[in-house]
Parts: sequence; structure tokens; C-alpha cells
Amino acid sequence: MKALVKSRPAPGAEILTVPDPTPAPDEVIIKVRRVAVCGTDLHIYGWDRWSQGRIKPPLIFGHEFVGEVVALGVRAEGVKLGDVVACETHVACGVCHLCRRGLMHVCERVQILGVDRSGAYAEFVAVPARNCWPIPDGMSLEVASALEPLGNAVHTVLAGEIAGCSALVTGCGPIGLFSIAVARACGAGPIVASDVNPYRLELAKKIGADVVIDAKKEDVAARTREATDGRGADVVLEMSGHPSAIRQGLQAIRNAGRMSLLGLPSDPFELDVTGLIIFKGVTVQGINGRLMFQTWRQMNELLTSGRLDIRPALTHVMAIEDYAQAMEQLKNGSAGKIVLIPWGEKAGTGKLEAAAGRA
Amino acid sequence: MKALVKSRPAPGAEILTVPDPTPAPDEVIIKVRRVAVCGTDLHIYGWDRWSQGRIKPPLIFGHEFVGEVVALGVRAEGVKLGDVVACETHVACGVCHLCRRGLMHVCERVQILGVDRSGAYAEFVAVPARNCWPIPDGMSLEVASALEPLGNAVHTVLAGEIAGCSALVTGCGPIGLFSIAVARACGAGPIVASDVNPYRLELAKKIGADVVIDAKKEDVAARTREATDGRGADVVLEMSGHPSAIRQGLQAIRNAGRMSLLGLPSDPFELDVTGLIIFKGVTVQGINGRLMFQTWRQMNELLTSGRLDIRPALTHVMAIEDYAQAMEQLKNGSAGKIVLIPWGEKAGTGKLEAAAGRA
Amino acid sequence: MKALVKSRPAPGAEILTVPDPTPAPDEVIIKVRRVAVCGTDLHIYGWDRWSQGRIKPPLIFGHEFVGEVVALGVRAEGVKLGDVVACETHVACGVCHLCRRGLMHVCERVQILGVDRSGAYAEFVAVPARNCWPIPDGMSLEVASALEPLGNAVHTVLAGEIAGCSALVTGCGPIGLFSIAVARACGAGPIVASDVNPYRLELAKKIGADVVIDAKKEDVAARTREATDGRGADVVLEMSGHPSAIRQGLQAIRNAGRMSLLGLPSDPFELDVTGLIIFKGVTVQGINGRLMFQTWRQMNELLTSGRLDIRPALTHVMAIEDYAQAMEQLKNGSAGKIVLIPWGEKAGTGKLEAAAGRA
Amino acid sequence: MKALVKSRPAPGAEILTVPDPTPAPDEVIIKVRRVAVCGTDLHIYGWDRWSQGRIKPPLIFGHEFVGEVVALGVRAEGVKLGDVVACETHVACGVCHLCRRGLMHVCERVQILGVDRSGAYAEFVAVPARNCWPIPDGMSLEVASALEPLGNAVHTVLAGEIAGCSALVTGCGPIGLFSIAVARACGAGPIVASDVNPYRLELAKKIGADVVIDAKKEDVAARTREATDGRGADVVLEMSGHPSAIRQGLQAIRNAGRMSLLGLPSDPFELDVTGLIIFKGVTVQGINGRLMFQTWRQMNELLTSGRLDIRPALTHVMAIEDYAQAMEQLKNGSAGKIVLIPWGEKAGTGKLEAAAGRA
Repeated sequence: MKALVKSRPAPGAEILTVPDPTPAPDEVIIKVRRVAVCGTDLHIYGWDRWSQGRIKPPLIFGHEFVGEVVALGVRAEGVKLGDVVACETHVACGVCHLCRRGLMHVCERVQILGVDRSGAYAEFVAVPARNCWPIPDGMSLEVASALEPLGNAVHTVLAGEIAGCSALVTGCGPIGLFSIAVARACGAGPIVASDVNPYRLELAKKIGADVVIDAKKEDVAARTREATDGRGADVVLEMSGHPSAIRQGLQAIRNAGRMSLLGLPSDPFELDVTGLIIFKGVTVQGINGRLMFQTWRQMNELLTSGRLDIRPALTHVMAIEDYAQAMEQLKNGSAGKIVLIPWGEKAGTGKLEAAAGRA
Repeated sequence: MKALVKSRPAPGAEILTVPDPTPAPDEVIIKVRRVAVCGTDLHIYGWDRWSQGRIKPPLIFGHEFVGEVVALGVRAEGVKLGDVVACETHVACGVCHLCRRGLMHVCERVQILGVDRSGAYAEFVAVPARNCWPIPDGMSLEVASALEPLGNAVHTVLAGEIAGCSALVTGCGPIGLFSIAVARACGAGPIVASDVNPYRLELAKKIGADVVIDAKKEDVAARTREATDGRGADVVLEMSGHPSAIRQGLQAIRNAGRMSLLGLPSDPFELDVTGLIIFKGVTVQGINGRLMFQTWRQMNELLTSGRLDIRPALTHVMAIEDYAQAMEQLKNGSAGKIVLIPWGEKAGTGKLEAAAGRA
Repeated sequence: MKALVKSRPAPGAEILTVPDPTPAPDEVIIKVRRVAVCGTDLHIYGWDRWSQGRIKPPLIFGHEFVGEVVALGVRAEGVKLGDVVACETHVACGVCHLCRRGLMHVCERVQILGVDRSGAYAEFVAVPARNCWPIPDGMSLEVASALEPLGNAVHTVLAGEIAGCSALVTGCGPIGLFSIAVARACGAGPIVASDVNPYRLELAKKIGADVVIDAKKEDVAARTREATDGRGADVVLEMSGHPSAIRQGLQAIRNAGRMSLLGLPSDPFELDVTGLIIFKGVTVQGINGRLMFQTWRQMNELLTSGRLDIRPALTHVMAIEDYAQAMEQLKNGSAGKIVLIPWGEKAGTGKLEAAAGRA
Repeated sequence: MKALVKSRPAPGAEILTVPDPTPAPDEVIIKVRRVAVCGTDLHIYGWDRWSQGRIKPPLIFGHEFVGEVVALGVRAEGVKLGDVVACETHVACGVCHLCRRGLMHVCERVQILGVDRSGAYAEFVAVPARNCWPIPDGMSLEVASALEPLGNAVHTVLAGEIAGCSALVTGCGPIGLFSIAVARACGAGPIVASDVNPYRLELAKKIGADVVIDAKKEDVAARTREATDGRGADVVLEMSGHPSAIRQGLQAIRNAGRMSLLGLPSDPFELDVTGLIIFKGVTVQGINGRLMFQTWRQMNELLTSGRLDIRPALTHVMAIEDYAQAMEQLKNGSAGKIVLIPWGEKAGTGKLEAAAGRA
């Protein structure tokens, strides 16, 4: 089969012909129909410090996808041939003390698709049957390919109270945009969004932010207080990974508020824990992955009931051969979520609205 | 001043001229602008068993209202002359062990406006300053007069998880209708609503129910399972007080679901606690009043951010002189929430859409 | 092998020779070292209405046990030969919507050991590997055999706030006694216990109740209020299944308190839901099984850290051949938890203190 | 009256004669019977950077105390003359959006006794009636004087799950010691405690730590994992304010664990938020004050039921005239909690065990 492979410990990737995968007893083989590009893929492609420590080339990367089940291992339960499924990409061990406690999303021996084992930039991918989530009728393939990162947003937004709460979303990349949509669908208001990229702020407005702040030009905390009658944000959803955004979020939050961190700072940084966290009585949550599979259920209901529409954040659909362009656009911030169409699918038209219109 | 008074221990009420109220040190006097009719008022008017045990005529009743602060007690804090305010109607003692634990909504010595002390079917009413909730700019008086019962709905809906949850609302009177709107605004879906009154089911659909069930003709549990791909409702919001609705709700709920009870059964009744609650691992919550004042804050944000619109449930506006008609319509189920316009206000037009359009 | 078998649809049971079990791929075979008698076993033995509807003779019953892993299925993970293990007796399907939501304890297709599949009144029993909980060093076999019912108590006590809360335990059978011990270990106080059996009330005192009430002679609600300076119980743990105890618990509970129900009423019964649940703002929880496996982890830590000692509730150790006597003693309320020693183990001495002293 | 006064903006304090306080309408006057020394008092005494920014001399400082109500303001409710009371030292405004939301402990306009208004190093002190907590019969004055800081510990320990959880307490000053005792009383185990002071580690063992670690000589994270069978701590309670202890705590915590911060770092510091908080899915809580008055109720029940005994942490009782010695001992770490006896009380004997024995 064809696959996009991180073939060498250096920047870049290449399309190669590789052997087809075969399923272990509890696995299934999925024919990939759509695969979205994650920031993690960009790190692997660019071969940054984190990738150098974690990735062992050659590796088929890519992990946000939807496809059709075309083969079943002998003990695969819960899915059947022909099911169209999205996948939880954290393959939990199932037996460590965290898995047994119901905390599979932070399994001590987790393997991540496209990071620690073969991923989905390929015609076919093998995944454990229990990681599959059959997608509901009528959901477009583009939306379905984005369920994994949307799950990050759902997990973050619903990690505490949100209905009737004011919320500040710092960082309007794809998951930040998803978070705005999810928070809005779940009764947050007003929703304030900050970023330094006008294109993304525009998308933020389109997907449901009540107020947008250009963090390069404006004082995020002051503007947030203004938008909340001086009270500050009840909830801050941090999606950028920038130390300055984390500080701004903590300045903008009301006492005893909740700040949930999903964006990954690239380095340790200095923080006024006393003034911004302890005296304020703030709760700071590190968010990783998605609750298995509570988050998937919540997401499913939000989408199928029509409460949530993420299509404004899905800005581009392109053929997988155009991966270099996709990586470049993500890097320079001129895209929301980009969805790739792999081999064997009719080439995408680039007209997402039409495609996604099936949702 | 003029007031609608429960003057004798018998069915009915009459408009009388009574002395103006004066404020205690921590109280304010409010000129009533709109006052909505509660089911409790109907009980008092009809002089049912509960009323006979609780009400001491003569009593000015009515407690869902909005008005303008026209006088301040010497130690009244947090409001000022001219503020337009809605009111929390549970006057908590502030010193019992429950109040001190932050559970003022179930204060052991609570006094309820219009039940245990003079209410708002009058030109003026005295309330503790701390029970006032200044209404936000731009909110219509009709909506504001319904904040107290809307708060019951918000308290009920938000008493547990709701986003991404399927919900069954049993009973589509005014608070049931509000609950549908609140659940929808907070990300519940699908929302199933049941009642035995076609007029109310029509309103339920209008305000946001995805599926409506006529409990007279259809099997509520079966229809709910059908609407949830066989899973049953994650959450049941019981608004009718009918034993059969409570049983139906428990049959319709999934294992480990949440059922929140606001409707008041008029008598003890038989229940299969083992089969419907214990084996299923269900949590049943009794809901009383509104959290002071967390519920008010949540409600405020839901309304001002535009996430929540309750106007479809506010079906009638009439002059307070027409109280007998209002009571009759509520009793026969031909109205949602009815808002009365007291003396000194220009007579209502009866065209709510226009009036409420100010919201 | 030898086993105690419910051989016919009638009262009683008999010791028979039956084939040894063989493990399915994900199962292990356990040589039973101790097996405790559950109230459920008593129902099956006595062939009550519930048993008649659920049990399909012939059935090896019994499900509270500890033993040694002596054979492994080819895909059994997480345990190894020679491990001494207790077992979660709810065999969850792992793929239904509840299991996937992390609610395996209320799996829609649950099979219970000794109820729906062969149990542990036998020399050997087959169980899924993932249902095994290796017991910590130094724990006595008697204590280990009671982990399953102790888990019911831990689940019930920890289903909400308990530290610094007053608690009423209604019903002092084995799990009621365990609940007293667990509540005490977790900071509840004062702990009030009620029963109608003086022997059990004596055990309640011994295991940690601060106040005991003979519900036959005393007013449970009044005595509970007295023990709590008039406030009522913060938490009620219902372990009897008697409608009168449930009513007493609801009368004794403070407003907005928590009542957790584990005891199973044998029939539907009449309840004043309005006065006892809704107006009081009480939360009533149905409790089923044990959280998998959070409850087991909590229980493990409570026992190994020495915070919890359940030995006062383990009143009898006897040979499995004496099963008829064990059933009789449980039935007439002259025992706490009874532990049986199966074939192949040196006959018990009856001196539990010595045996349990190993804990 | 006599008082210990921070009279000038410089290190030190002096005993002066000052006017007696008079009560505002909602206040009471308390004759101080015992007053304990807080770390905050040490900061004020030493005139550190924080004090220089916050304290306006002259100020009577001291805020951990117990005394007798000797005068009542005209609108003081909930206490009566002769009551012996401890006090919540955060005087909340009652009307800001946080107070109304039930978050009085982080009131935006809070005034702290002995920091922002006159404190308790005096014969008499004025406090709002609603800040008083009548102490239960039989509680020693020494224990009662420490309820305020004990409340910090109770708030921290009970800010999340604790029963059946392993816990690491970093920092064994008085509140760290209290936290060990509270965690133990609430079912935590094993409890690991770290400090750099052997005297404090000895007290930690005495008050209930299962394992103590000298952080100067040993690897806190490695030792904690060892004490928890390799799993890491479920909960970390940070009581030291040292950046290195915070880092150690985050290294020692298991994925998805809870870390509650009460100790105040004196400066911003560098932290690996990605590796220690986000990837691990950890929740970090800033803790401030005590929940009003839920924490007080929990604390009351823990003490009166005998579950909690803090006397091992109350190491010294001395006359208030010896304040300089008390400050010195706290500074050099040769004391747990020090309780002072003010003027008008018979001089202390220094034999705390006898005194505290009344508890």
C-alpha cells in the first residue's frame, strides 16, 4: 500500500510503498477515507526536539482519521465489517493501575497511533477494535476525521462547570476553534477568544466567540474583565501553549475559577504561582487525550443533536499528495483544520462546504 | 396600595386596599412592574390541602416578579434606588447550620414571599436587599418576572452533567418548558419531552424539544429508548409531580443516570425502588428553590449571552384585574407562563411577542 | 472436583462431584481457598421469588472468595500463576455503551459469578483475568474472601462526601457493619447505627458505631437528631432494604443530605417523595456493585494502610460441609460474615481471631 | 487594653496600651483567651517584602485565637454573651459577585483580621458575629485557638478525593502536620511526608505519617513511588511553598492525580508545565482560607467525634510577653504550633500535654 512515511531522522517525509498491515487478534484493519493534520504531525514533519526524542523512523505518521473496517482480528469485538469508524488514538494497555482505575487516557504504557506505532497517513491502518468509534449516520467524512482533536476540545471544555459560565479561550488554532464551538454549544457565555493571528480571530468569531482579542495589541485580562462586567472569566481554556497566554489567562480568571490547559508549552517557564493561582484559589487542570469513552459519547450527542457544528473550523480539504502544502499552511497559520484525502478516494475538490454539507 | 389578597380560608381571592409596606433595616421596597403566576399561587387560590396547612389569611400572595427599588432600609446593601430587580423568594435566616454550610436554599427557617410573608400581587413589596437580583440591561420585564421559576429550571438542569447527554423532560408546564430550553442551551441532546396535554407538547416542540411524547397514548420509556438508539435517557428532569411520570422516567433512564425531581407529587405513592433505582444505580435528586446565588448567576449569563430564550413559554400577558381568568387558564392547561401587569402600569396589550421582543 | 450445587429448583443445595472448569482464552482458573456466604446465597438456597426468576439450576453458587491462580487462558493478562486473588464478581461485557462510558458496574449484559455463571462454592472456579485483584501481602485469607462485599460498603460510603459528616447506617448485617467501619476510617462522625437485632447492634458498637439504636424500641430519626445536636444526619447509608428503615433514614437526614441505598427492598412500597426527598433537597443514590476498579484500589489502600479493620464483622469460620448451619445462622441473624473453608484446605479451627490475626 | 502592636514599618513589634474596641452593629467583642502564632505573623514581625506592601502600621496583629463573647452589637445574630468562640479570620463583604456565588473565602474585598484590620494579639478584639464559630464542649482552649489554621488543612485535604488515596505532604510546619493528621483521619494511606528539618519529620511521624523523607538527603519522588508500589501519590498536599517541593510533588504524583497548594512560594519560579502537569493530566488547586462555613463544620465533626487529634502538633504554650521567643522558635523550625496566653489569663505552665488533655 501507499503511505506517507517519516523515513529518516530529519525534517520532511516521503510517500513510499509499504506492506499492508495485518490485524492482531483484537485488532481491525481500516481503509482510511479521510485523515486530518494535527499539530503533532507538524512537529514530526519538522523534526523538532520532541520528535527527535520520541519518534523512531521509519514511521507512518498521522492519527486523526476516519475509515471503513475491512478486516477483523479473530477476537475483535464491538465493530463489524463495513462500519465507518473514527478512532481513539491512545492505545491503552488495559492492565496498569491507571487503566484499572478508569483512567485509560493517562495509561502509563500508552501507545499513540502515528507516534509510537503505525498511523493513518496510509491506505490502511491496524487499530484495536475497542479503539473504534462507529460514526453516526449522516456525519460527513470531513467532520468524522476531526473527531479525535474535537475530543480534546470536548474533554477540555467539559472538565468542569461550563454552562452559564463566562469563558476565555486563549489560542485559536483548530482545537481552540473547536473549543469555542463546544463551549458555546454547552451554554458558556460570554465567550472571549484571544490569539495573535487575525485570520484565526476571524475564524473564532465565525465559529461563535462573542468577543475576540488580538493579544499582540490588546490587554487580554483587561478586555476579558470588560466583557464580563468586571468579574473576570469563570473558565479559561488554554489552547496555545504560550507562557504569556497562560499568564494572561490567570490574570483574566476570577477567583476560584477553572483553567484547563491543553496547549503544550515547549519549555519550562516562570510563573507567579502565589499571586495567580494560590491567592486566587484557582484550579488548574492538565488535560490529556479524551476520556475513554465518555468524551466520545458526549461529542457524539453534541454533533448528532445539532447542538454543535464545527465546520467553520474545517477550512481546507486536499489530496494527501499535497501534504507539503498542508504542513506549510498549518505552520504559517493560514488554515484551520486541514483534512487530507488519501489514495483510492476520488480526489477532493477543495470545496469543503459542499463536502461537509453532508453533516 | 392595591393588592390581590387571599383574604379568607376559602377558595378565591380579592383585590383590596391595604397599607403600604415599610422596609426593615436590611430590606428594600420594590414597586412591582410585572408579576407572573406560579402553580403555587393556583394552589393558594384554589385553597387545596397544602394551602390550608401552610397559609395564614389574610395574605398578599404572588412571588414571581420584577420591579423597581423605590426605598431602602438603613442597612440595605448591594442595591440602590432605581435598580430594576428580580427577587429570590426564599428568605433564608442566614444563621442556621444549613445557611452556614452554604445551603441557604434549604434553610431550616426559610420564609417564602407570598407564602409565609407578604408577596408581590401588589403595588409594592418589601424584600431583604440581599434577595434582589438587578436585571441586566435590555431584558424585557416579562422575561425578568419569570426569573424565579426559570431559576428552578436552571437549578434542576444544572444539578449534574447535562452537556452531551440525552434528556427526558416529563411534564411541560411552564417550568418543564423552561427546562427544555435550558437543557438545549446547555448542550443536552436529544431532548425528549412528555405530557398529556397537546397544547403543552406543541409549546415543548416550539421551545426546543427534539421529540415529544403524548404520555396518554404512547409508551414514554419505549419512545425514549427509540430516540436514544436504545440506550435510554442519560438524564430525566421530572416536572409534573405525577407518580406515573416518575415511574416512566425511571424506566426510561439508563443505568447510572440522573433523575432530578422538581414536580411535587400531591400524595405518597408506591415505587419499585429495587428495580428502578438500586439495580440501575440511578441517582435521584430532590430539587428545591435555587442555589443562592449561583443559579442566578448562571441564569443571568445564559440569558444575556443569548444562549437561552424562554419567550416561547411566556404565552400570555394580562392585567392583574384579570387574575381569575389567569388562574382558570393555568388550571385547564391552556397557557404556558402568564405574566400580570399590576396597577399603575399601562395596561398590557396581550401581545406578548411585541412586549417580550425587548429582550 | 467437589462443589456445592443448587441442583434443583427447590429450597436447599447439595455437594456433588462435577467436572473441573477449563479457562476460556481471557480467563484463569482459581483454586478456592476461602469463600464467604452472601445474603444472595441465602436467597438462592432458600429459593425465594427472585431466585426462581433468575437462577437456572444446576448452578454452583457462591461468589465471595479468595484463591490461588492455578491455570491461565492463552490471552489472560495482568495476573500470573501462583497469585492469590480476590475477584470482582460482575463480569462486564466490555462493549456495551455503559461499559464504554466507564460504567462497567452497571453493564447492561453483566453476568454475575454464582448467579449467572458457575460460582465459587467449589474447589476451582473460572473467572476472566481482568476480574482478579491480587491481594496484598499479609492480608488474611478470611479478610480477602470478604473483599467483594466490603467493596459494596466502600462504594456506598465513598459515593459522596463522608469526611467530617455525621452518618446514619440503617441495617447492621455484614455489609452494614463493614459500612460503619469504612465510614469511621474515612472520617465520618458521629456514626449512628440502627437495627432490630441486639446481637448485630453489639457488633455495630464493636466495629465503630458511636451510637446504636434499636429500631424496634426507639425513634430512629429523633435519636439521630439528638446525636447530631439537632441537625440530622449528613449522610444515610441504607443497608437493610426495609421500607421503614428507608423512611426513617429520610426523616433523620438533614436537608440537602445524601442517602445511599444498597439494601434491596423485596417489594415496591409507598414513599412520601414530596415531603422526604423534594422539599428536603435530598439526593438518593442507588448503589450496585463496585466501581471497576476504583473501589478495589480504595479498599486496598484502606486495608493495607491499617486505617480499616473489618475483623470484628467476620464472626465465623467453618468448613464448607457445614453450609446448612451457615445458612441457618445468617438467616436467624446470629452471625456477622461467615467464611467457609472449602475442600483441600486444612479444616478451619473456628478460631477466627487467630486466623484473621494474620491481617 | 494591652496589645502586641506592629507599631512601625520596621522589624519587630511592641506591647502597648491601646483603646478598647467597640462593636459595629453586626459585630461582637471577644475577650481573647488563647492566640496562636501564624507564619503570617512571623512575616509581619520580620517585616518582609509582602508585609511592607500590605500592612499599614500601627496594627494589632495575630488572628488565630479563641475567646469569650463579652459584648454584642445591636444586630449581631447567631452568638450570645458568654459563648466561647473561634473565628473565621476572612471578613467577607457579602455582596460582591464571589460572595453571592457562595465563594466568600475568595471575596474580592476580603479584610483579614490582624492583617487588614485589628487582630487578636490583644485583650479584646471586635469581629463580625457571623465570623464566630462557637466551640464544642470539652475542646481545650489550645486546640480551639488552632482551628483557623487547622481549617486551612481541612480545606486542603478535603478539596478532592482523599479516602483510600495515597498522599504525599510536602512541608511539615504546623499546617503540614495538621494535614497529615486530617488526611489520616479521613482514610488516606499510605501517607508520606517530606521536609528538610529532622525535628519536624519527627513530629510528622508522631502525628501519623507512615513514611517520612528528608528532602535534603533523599529523592522525594523515588521514595514516594517506593512507598506506593511504584504507582506514585494519588494526592499531593503542598505545605512548604518551596519551588523544589512543588516540583518534587509533581514528579511524585501519579497521572491524573490532585495536587493542592497551600504553601506560598515567595517568588515566581520556573516550572515544566508540559511534562509535570499537562502530559500527566494533573489537577493543581490553589487553596485559600476555609470554605465558609463548610470547612468549619467538617473540622468540628472530625474533632468532636474523636477521629482527629492535633495535639502532637501543638508543641508550645507560652505567655504572650514571650512573643519574641515564639517568633524565634518558629523561624528556626524548633516548634510546631505555638499557642500564646494573653494578659488576664493565668500564666501558662508550658505543660501543654496537661492543658490540651482537656480536649
